[in-house]
Amino acid sequence: MPTPDPGRRNERARRAVLDAALGLLPETGYADLTVEAIAARAGVGKQTIYRWWRGKGAVILDALVEAVTAAGPVALPDTGDLRTDLRAVVRSTVAEFADSQLSATTRALTIETLADDALAEQARDRLLRPQLDAVKDRLRAGQHAGQVRAEVDLDQAVELLFGPIYHRWLLRTGPLTDDYADSLVELALAALAP
Amino acid sequence: MPTPDPGRRNERARRAVLDAALGLLPETGYADLTVEAIAARAGVGKQTIYRWWRGKGAVILDALVEAVTAAGPVALPDTGDLRTDLRAVVRSTVAEFADSQLSATTRALTIETLADDALAEQARDRLLRPQLDAVKDRLRAGQHAGQVRAEVDLDQAVELLFGPIYHRWLLRTGPLTDDYADSLVELALAALAP
Repeated sequence: MPTPDPGRRNERARRAVLDAALGLLPETGYADLTVEAIAARAGVGKQTIYRWWRGKGAVILDALVEAVTAAGPVALPDTGDLRTDLRAVVRSTVAEFADSQLSATTRALTIETLADDALAEQARDRLLRPQLDAVKDRLRAGQHAGQVRAEVDLDQAVELLFGPIYHRWLLRTGPLTDDYADSLVELALAALAP
Repeated sequence: MPTPDPGRRNERARRAVLDAALGLLPETGYADLTVEAIAARAGVGKQTIYRWWRGKGAVILDALVEAVTAAGPVALPDTGDLRTDLRAVVRSTVAEFADSQLSATTRALTIETLADDALAEQARDRLLRPQLDAVKDRLRAGQHAGQVRAEVDLDQAVELLFGPIYHRWLLRTGPLTDDYADSLVELALAALAP
């Protein structure tokens, strides 16, 4: 008869906590989400959560990272047409910021990361970096194909695509629509073109 | 003999509160700044502050707005050379975000505005809009001079200049230097050029 496997039990509890957090988030909103409520829904003690995470921000970050990772490695389509591929990723990013529920989560995580350097590094390296790197890889392919100037710093090129979206979202200065996304891509393509 | 002027007395108290807040900020940092400490330094009661402001975020916002306004109307130099003028404003913005004290204040205000829609609108309309509009005016002059394509949306052009700086500052993904500022201006000019 096999002995119980504590590693597997821990993994089940960890999974239950992450699922509970993601399930509760749209119901309560981030501000009213509590570690107590996550623990209750996951069927674990509050101390189990605090043994593994520093707070709800860290739980939500892990949950989001796993949700993104579960969707497979992040990669942009490469149709050979840079405009088409960038439009797809920029439209979908703009739509995420326009979605009130996703936007509320991003806003809450942004608040926590502005106040917590360690969480900021984790959010950047585990959640955002893979997505930004995927865009950078697609731009590098465009550079090899002669669609992007050789001397362009690809990190700056990525920021040129996503910085304006953050700015508009943060300051609420304009609509977040497909038309907006497309014209942003046109500006970026003009900036990068040989 | 003139009767005491309550309007003037109020204005003196208001001014004392704003000066106290700006004076204390670099000493304590935003997180440890309290309404009590501002009141004590200003020589007014705490209730005087709460009669006019909702909290320290609103006080700091007013103080920053007045400091910016006192420097005169915001306008960019117009040397006729768009590159020179944009480099000046982008370098100075990048330097503000690189300055640890100013950056701490901006971070604190960003946290408060992400959590408070009314304060967000005020920060945008009273603090940021005049600065963004000044850049927009300079770009419009460039458009009239044939240095910026006629069909470019100038709000998007402004976001193209400042969005990447916010992105880099928020995610701490790269250095905030004059070289960075200059190469951002080159990308933007390429995006906007006819």
